[in-house]
Order: sequence, then C-alpha cells, then structure tokens
Amino acid sequence: MCSGKDEKYFKNISQRERAIFEGAITMGALFHQFIGTPVSEESAKVLERAIKESMELQPCIDSVEVKIDFGDSGLENEYAYVSLTGEMLDVKVVSTYQGVGAVIRMRYVEELNYPLMYVESAG
Amino acid sequence: MCSGKDEKYFKNISQRERAIFEGAITMGALFHQFIGTPVSEESAKVLERAIKESMELQPCIDSVEVKIDFGDSGLENEYAYVSLTGEMLDVKVVSTYQGVGAVIRMRYVEELNYPLMYVESAG
Amino acid sequence: MCSGKDEKYFKNISQRERAIFEGAITMGALFHQFIGTPVSEESAKVLERAIKESMELQPCIDSVEVKIDFGDSGLENEYAYVSLTGEMLDVKVVSTYQGVGAVIRMRYVEELNYPLMYVESAG
Amino acid sequence: MCSGKDEKYFKNISQRERAIFEGAITMGALFHQFIGTPVSEESAKVLERAIKESMELQPCIDSVEVKIDFGDSGLENEYAYVSLTGEMLDVKVVSTYQGVGAVIRMRYVEELNYPLMYVESAG
Repeated sequence: MCSGKDEKYFKNISQRERAIFEGAITMGALFHQFIGTPVSEESAKVLERAIKESMELQPCIDSVEVKIDFGDSGLENEYAYVSLTGEMLDVKVVSTYQGVGAVIRMRYVEELNYPLMYVESAG
Repeated sequence: MCSGKDEKYFKNISQRERAIFEGAITMGALFHQFIGTPVSEESAKVLERAIKESMELQPCIDSVEVKIDFGDSGLENEYAYVSLTGEMLDVKVVSTYQGVGAVIRMRYVEELNYPLMYVESAG
Repeated sequence: MCSGKDEKYFKNISQRERAIFEGAITMGALFHQFIGTPVSEESAKVLERAIKESMELQPCIDSVEVKIDFGDSGLENEYAYVSLTGEMLDVKVVSTYQGVGAVIRMRYVEELNYPLMYVESAG
Repeated sequence: MCSGKDEKYFKNISQRERAIFEGAITMGALFHQFIGTPVSEESAKVLERAIKESMELQPCIDSVEVKIDFGDSGLENEYAYVSLTGEMLDVKVVSTYQGVGAVIRMRYVEELNYPLMYVESAG
C-alpha cells in the first residue's frame, strides 16, 4: 500500500520510476535486516514468512516472495544452523504505484560471484 | 542444544556461568538482529515466532519467549507500521548447560529509560 | 563504481532508472544495516564515516553523506548513549550510471511522522 | 562504564558473573549488528573503529578490539567488496564490574567450522 499523503515528494519521477524506487528500497532493506539471522532447515519456513510479512509493510509493496536455499552453506557444522547469507536468498519483490508495477529480483549469480539485485520487469 | 565438541573452550568457567554466558549472547544477538524490522499489528505474531525459532538455534538455548508490545510507538502514522525498537520488546531466554539453567530477561525499565537485560534467575 | 560485467541484467531499464534503482537499494540497505547501533555524541562522527564508507562500496554509488542528529532521542538516559533510529538520520546518496545521476534522500518528515526516502533529483 | 542506578537488578549474581554477562551481551550484539555490512580493504579500518567505539558504549564494557581478516572471503569478485561475515572477525571484549573483569573472545575456530564466542579469562 502506498500512502496518499507523501505524493508531493514524488512529483519529479514517473510512476514506473516510483515503483522501481520503492521495490529497490525494500530489497536493500530485506538483505541488510535479515543477513546474519541464525537459520536451520526447521526454522527456514517461519523465517521466510516473517521476512515476507515484514517487507510487505513497506510503502507501495504488493508482495514479497522469499526462498532460503542452504546449498553448500556449511549446515553440516557442529551446531546444525548457519547465519543467513545473501548467497542463500532468492527473493522477488512486486511493487506498484498508481497501477504501474515493477518486479525486483535478488538471486546469487554465479558468473558475478554476487547476490545480484536487478529489475526483472517494469510496466 | 549445546555442542559437545566445544567443551574444552569453557573449562575455565562454571556451569552456571556458561548458562549465563550463552543466554546473554543470545539476548544481545536478538536485539541487534531484529531492531529496525518493519512490524504491524498483523505481522507481529509471525515476527515473534521467527525471532523465537531463530534464537532457539543458538548454543545451549532451551527456549525463547518474545512479546512485541506497541505501546505508544507511533503505529498511528501514515503507513500503519513501525520499525521494531527495544522499548517494544519483552523477551525471556532460558539457557542450560549440563543441567544448570539461567533465565535472562529483557524489558523496558521506565526508571532507567532503557530496555534492560538482566539475569532473572540462575540455578 | 558500477561493474561492467552485470550490464546485461539491466538492459530493460533506462540509465536514469538504473541510477534511481541503485541509490534506492543503498538507502534501504543503510537504514536496516545500522539502525540499532549504540551511538553517543562522541562516537557519532566515526559511525557517520563508517556508514559513508561502507555504503559507497555498493554498485554505482558515487557518494554518501550521513548526519546523525540526536534531537530528543533520549540521550539523557542513565547510559549516555542511544540505539540509532531512522528519526536521527539525514542521508544523501548520489548514484550514477553511464553519466546519468540521481540523488536519493532520507530525512525525518514531521507531517508524515516517518523517515521518508525520496528522489531529490534525477538527471 | 556501568550505571550505578541498575544495581538492584543484579543482586542475584556475582561480580564475575556480571562481567561475563555484560561482555557476552556485547559480543552477541556486535556480531548481529554488523554482519552484512559492505567492507573492502580500504574501508576495513574505519569500520573496525566504528564497531569498537559503538560497542564500548554498552554497559560495563572497558574496551573492544576488532580485527577484520578477509581470508578467502571472495574479495576478488566483480565489486571489490564483500558482506562482513563472522568468519572474518576476531574480536576481544573486556568488561568490568566493580573491579572484577572478564575477557570475551570471538574467533573462527576451524575444527568447529564456526565463529566461536568464549570466555578467554575472568577475574
């Protein structure tokens, strides 16, 4: 949901730019809020849901999908959990402003050795 | 659950001290991992559960109870959510090492104007 | 600095949109990485500088300016420090992609009772 | 510095236990506040100093020493920076309560494949 009261601060950008802007904020927020959280195979589902529900509160966010994939993250250590890293996350954020939407994606890109955030599509 | 493999690192402290040590780490971790998370009345329950389940993974932690209380945190703003603060949290962490337990508590203490962490009891 | 190697992921957006996108990610990241950090009047300067230098590393970020303003944040408590909040931050992020820039701002806006992030200008 | 005003909350533990307690909180806090921060070889020094100065503000903390070691953390990626991880940190926290001190340490322990926090010494 977007607030109506802050519109005057966004008159200098297009609807599409606003959608990209808000989706990008939420993606940066998500990464830096939750990286480091202890997570195990058992707790992954509820953590995914808490990330989703908290990030959907941000301005102009329609929906957030989060998948935690342990890959070779070292879950086989003595403690059976790891600290959440960017490499483990696959996230899709859908934002809309006045009917114009954007889909922002983060996923680990092997050729860059980096969890890349990019615009998957924008209306 | 405590690991058995790290015991040699803890020979210089008592069982009760180990329980206090691990509970305190988890309380500090909890605060600094989750402060700043967007939260609304609707999302509070799942966030409480994710905090609980992630923090129960830490070494020697038996159980974690988390209550988010909005008080006068400004939930009535334009966006119907706030960033989680220490003032909003009431947390109890129960830790055990070799049968000796400790209960660590964090709650906002008005006379200190501060979310105080302290040892509620230790066995 | 932008990487050259990730350009194929950004062919569907304009240079201006890329600048807005990267600036917005960094603003969301900054907020959620550093909110909750203990800060006093003495430590504010080095914290501002660490926030600046770490956030300037992000893709396509030219410069970051951070000001911490304690206002009525409760610094007069028993412990002479507070946890950093969004209300205390005034931040400007300058991003550029292929010569086209954007200035992203965050500051507390009283009429919204909210630390608003918006696009101050985009080239 | 310890506050004098909160002493009544700590009557059930010894001075040594209080020192361990406060040092452990600070170690857990440090990890979960700063993990995920973008860091390069150039920015490491100022980040180490900001971590030190913010964590020294916590109750009963005398001094904090932080060393960031990049090891094989992937700094050779396209972007010349990485997200700070626990594996990269070597930290010593010195806490004191009424003249009795504790030294809390965190460092990556290879045999555990884990950044272990433990009590290095307690007076």
